[in-house]
Amino acid sequence: MLLLRRCLSLTRFGPLNTQRSQVAPTVCAAHLWSSSSSSDDQRSNQRTHGPSWRHGLAGLLAGTGAVLVYGLHKHKAEQADTNRLEAIEPTSSHPIFSQEEVTKHRSLEDGVWVTYKGGVYDITEFVAMHPGGNKILLAAGGPLEPFWALYAVHNQEHVLEILSEYKVGELSAEDLKKQQAVKSSDPYSSDPERHPVLRINSLKPFNAEPPAEILTDNYITPSALFFKRNHLPVPQVDPDSYRLCVEGLPGGALTLSLEDLKTKFPKHTITATLQCAGNRRAEMNKVKLVKGLNWGIAAISNASWSGAKLRDVLLAAGYEPDVAKWARHVQFEGLDKDVTGTTYGSSIPINKAVSEEGDVLLAYEMNGEALPADHGFPVRVVVPGTVGARNVKWLGKIVVSGEESNSHWQQNDYKGFSPGTDWDTVDFKSAPAVQELPIQSAITAPADGAMVDRSEEEVTVQGYAWSGGGREVVRVDVSVDLGKTWQVAQLRTSDKGQEREPSPPPGRAWAWKLWEVTVPIPPGAKELEIICKAVDNSYNVQPDTVAPIWNLRGVLSNAWHRVTVKVREDEDEE
Amino acid sequence: MLLLRRCLSLTRFGPLNTQRSQVAPTVCAAHLWSSSSSSDDQRSNQRTHGPSWRHGLAGLLAGTGAVLVYGLHKHKAEQADTNRLEAIEPTSSHPIFSQEEVTKHRSLEDGVWVTYKGGVYDITEFVAMHPGGNKILLAAGGPLEPFWALYAVHNQEHVLEILSEYKVGELSAEDLKKQQAVKSSDPYSSDPERHPVLRINSLKPFNAEPPAEILTDNYITPSALFFKRNHLPVPQVDPDSYRLCVEGLPGGALTLSLEDLKTKFPKHTITATLQCAGNRRAEMNKVKLVKGLNWGIAAISNASWSGAKLRDVLLAAGYEPDVAKWARHVQFEGLDKDVTGTTYGSSIPINKAVSEEGDVLLAYEMNGEALPADHGFPVRVVVPGTVGARNVKWLGKIVVSGEESNSHWQQNDYKGFSPGTDWDTVDFKSAPAVQELPIQSAITAPADGAMVDRSEEEVTVQGYAWSGGGREVVRVDVSVDLGKTWQVAQLRTSDKGQEREPSPPPGRAWAWKLWEVTVPIPPGAKELEIICKAVDNSYNVQPDTVAPIWNLRGVLSNAWHRVTVKVREDEDEE
Repeated sequence: MLLLRRCLSLTRFGPLNTQRSQVAPTVCAAHLWSSSSSSDDQRSNQRTHGPSWRHGLAGLLAGTGAVLVYGLHKHKAEQADTNRLEAIEPTSSHPIFSQEEVTKHRSLEDGVWVTYKGGVYDITEFVAMHPGGNKILLAAGGPLEPFWALYAVHNQEHVLEILSEYKVGELSAEDLKKQQAVKSSDPYSSDPERHPVLRINSLKPFNAEPPAEILTDNYITPSALFFKRNHLPVPQVDPDSYRLCVEGLPGGALTLSLEDLKTKFPKHTITATLQCAGNRRAEMNKVKLVKGLNWGIAAISNASWSGAKLRDVLLAAGYEPDVAKWARHVQFEGLDKDVTGTTYGSSIPINKAVSEEGDVLLAYEMNGEALPADHGFPVRVVVPGTVGARNVKWLGKIVVSGEESNSHWQQNDYKGFSPGTDWDTVDFKSAPAVQELPIQSAITAPADGAMVDRSEEEVTVQGYAWSGGGREVVRVDVSVDLGKTWQVAQLRTSDKGQEREPSPPPGRAWAWKLWEVTVPIPPGAKELEIICKAVDNSYNVQPDTVAPIWNLRGVLSNAWHRVTVKVREDEDEE
Repeated sequence: MLLLRRCLSLTRFGPLNTQRSQVAPTVCAAHLWSSSSSSDDQRSNQRTHGPSWRHGLAGLLAGTGAVLVYGLHKHKAEQADTNRLEAIEPTSSHPIFSQEEVTKHRSLEDGVWVTYKGGVYDITEFVAMHPGGNKILLAAGGPLEPFWALYAVHNQEHVLEILSEYKVGELSAEDLKKQQAVKSSDPYSSDPERHPVLRINSLKPFNAEPPAEILTDNYITPSALFFKRNHLPVPQVDPDSYRLCVEGLPGGALTLSLEDLKTKFPKHTITATLQCAGNRRAEMNKVKLVKGLNWGIAAISNASWSGAKLRDVLLAAGYEPDVAKWARHVQFEGLDKDVTGTTYGSSIPINKAVSEEGDVLLAYEMNGEALPADHGFPVRVVVPGTVGARNVKWLGKIVVSGEESNSHWQQNDYKGFSPGTDWDTVDFKSAPAVQELPIQSAITAPADGAMVDRSEEEVTVQGYAWSGGGREVVRVDVSVDLGKTWQVAQLRTSDKGQEREPSPPPGRAWAWKLWEVTVPIPPGAKELEIICKAVDNSYNVQPDTVAPIWNLRGVLSNAWHRVTVKVREDEDEE
């Protein structure tokens, strides 16, 4: 409880201080790094790579999620013939190449060359093995350093070992000197301070979840404890010069300041749970390793969000019934971007965006305060009932379109596949982008592996349950006999002792339910497996087991949740 | 194929002939039996029972679904002490009672007496055991005959045996004569002719499904083969005097003729799959017997429906935004009714009813022709994406209300419960009425128990998949190794060789998908279990097994579907 109070106070007084700095873009088209040194990086990068191929590959550029796969490769690297490690040693036998020569190798046809700390590497053969896919081609013909600064997962010894296998030469001293003159700073250096209790899945970009044992202590998750899921560095945006651009509607673009959003549109507040598509991925990893951050059960949190309704803003920007004849999607672009200038992006179906009942917000407040930097300051989209990935943070642009966002995260990530589909056979076009999420629940207490006392005779089980698409959770069943019999848990939609929130209208149950049930400790049991499963008001249920829903990206992990606790026998009756 | 052609021709020329007869009600309040003899029954019944208690019990009155439970009771009856059967034998030792005396026993306090063929029975103790619940009280103080005519499930020997145990006397000869003077006709005598291929689950009321092996031969199910789910006798409605009443909106009631519906509102056509909540109940019965018709996998069918949009009719009747402040539900009343005059009824949430995208129709055509009698002639509601029970047939009245329908079928039926909930502990108020149904799929070929030839080396598996709420089926996985590995099936939304229908807008995928996949026959296998499971575009999946979703009413049975086929070895290589 002391811990929780500390978290709450951090929410209140902590991160906001770090938000107001630097100059933000004032026009839609210029989403620059707010740190000038990073800007330098980006520009040099643009010069090196040129805009023509950059554009073509923009859609391939991915965030992270590669930590785990590097684990796999590390394994392979360790198993590889150690003789080959000799190739790491710098030898004078390597030929010298000019930057101009290196730059000629930017495709699978011409070969894919990169430089790293003065070495020249022909990684053509490695491209097919790259855990991040084709996006490695973005670095072709130039230095790896700016990319590895962005995707810090590369800064590991075994990655260097893999690279060393492909060394073909040295960069000329003159060109190396030029490269080094370009200041390479850490694009994550201005990321905000985070609460130390968070369990970090990846530091750069920052991805972390609260400890499961405190997740359901509050119906509303304190902002500092809310799970963080960043794909890129946190952009620093000046709220005074911030502009949101709305495009694609008759009458041209509409540009809105933060003040416009706050004063020209009614302020709406909703309580909505956000969940990462990768929540509970760790359970899929136990079946077979997948590509992605190893989330536990706490990549889900619940907050109150306030802002303008996207519907109202679209109407102000010229949305009218005729638009529905051609428009199908509303695309969002974040101000967070990678070294090539590609921003995070995604889209949602237009009917969700314009519906009165869709409740999509352009939120500028979280839990009654300005959005924290990690959650999209100054403005983010909140698409209740929809996977976290569509709730774009640091929102820079809205585009009404006939097409989905062509971003990597919409087209080639955040999709579900059959267990039999692997990276060799996957066709990302064959599956729809995840929007609404399926029914979910998990046990937050007792923790897996915890001890319970036989003398207590029973154990109180607690957890959360939520479903996408505004479908209300109507029941949670709990079993302590491997699913033979089930007890129905008590559900609540507020903190204990607080007044119950009124039931949401049908189809607009955006917030999770917390639940609790007391179950007997069966006589003789040394261990107790506790299982939970939830039901929503479309009577969707969770599948029994993980393996049949396993998928190569490890998303949509919503099988029955199971924890095993140990029963401590009474050794002393005194 | 010949069979199918026969079915189609029956659809075209068959049942319509039987629809145009008798006089239908011309005002909302007077939904009379269209058969005058039935009307007599009803009136005599009203006289006997009086209106005061009838009204109070109306909500308890149920349809059928009791066939199976009678099976259970039959079992009990057979196991009962056979000495008690002596009580069946008419003996002169029984006292004689007047009807007036019998009529005094109409409650648990005063005792519950009924008469049957001149016998007087005190069934007070049986009330709690009645499979149909308290509705048995409707018969209290009077003759059972009209109720048993309605619920033909009672016409079985073991039911008579149960009754005989409660005999307390004989009805006076004079009163028996009076009773017999009331012509007791079969309220089902004017039910339409049905196709003989249908597999009948209950004759009165008529409930039947097509053979699973022909269910997916057509993308559009021929009307004659479309599963039939009636709760009561089919009313005969004269289309010329038919009136639909719309109530509850500012400005008073609106009354519409069939001609009004056809000419005053735009005609819309949708293809929508309807599924009974009890589809695949037979699989639940294998886990533990439930109350309800023993549906196989074919209580689901797909048709094209044409009619006026409910939204348009509600707008014409005075629906405007202010109504949304208090209205929550739209109630439907059918013209089908029981002996007490209680009509079939249900309701849907108002947002589904008034939404442009809800596509709720007041349908007067099915598959391009007038609705067949069994499917609601002349007008039924089609609530796409919603459980069959809300798609009220023979629609007589629409009421916009703050409350759900208080009908038995809305309040005390068609709800889901935890496997641990039994008839002693069930609280129907604790669960929401089923509206949207969860993801579903089943294998229609090969049939369970079929033979496949080893020499073929592979087997083609076919089936259907559908999800409620307009959620589109995006994938069907099929396994022949108990779920260890899965193959992805080919989906289609039209008949083979026909042009593919365009993808529906998000949230409006009302029709099923048919699917097919060819799987290898594993070497050495003598039997092959084939499993299918589907995924919708909210990535909802089917649960692995039946037992954890078992519920006392046997609804919402959507676990993986499994069929076992036998592999015939090649005995002769010639």
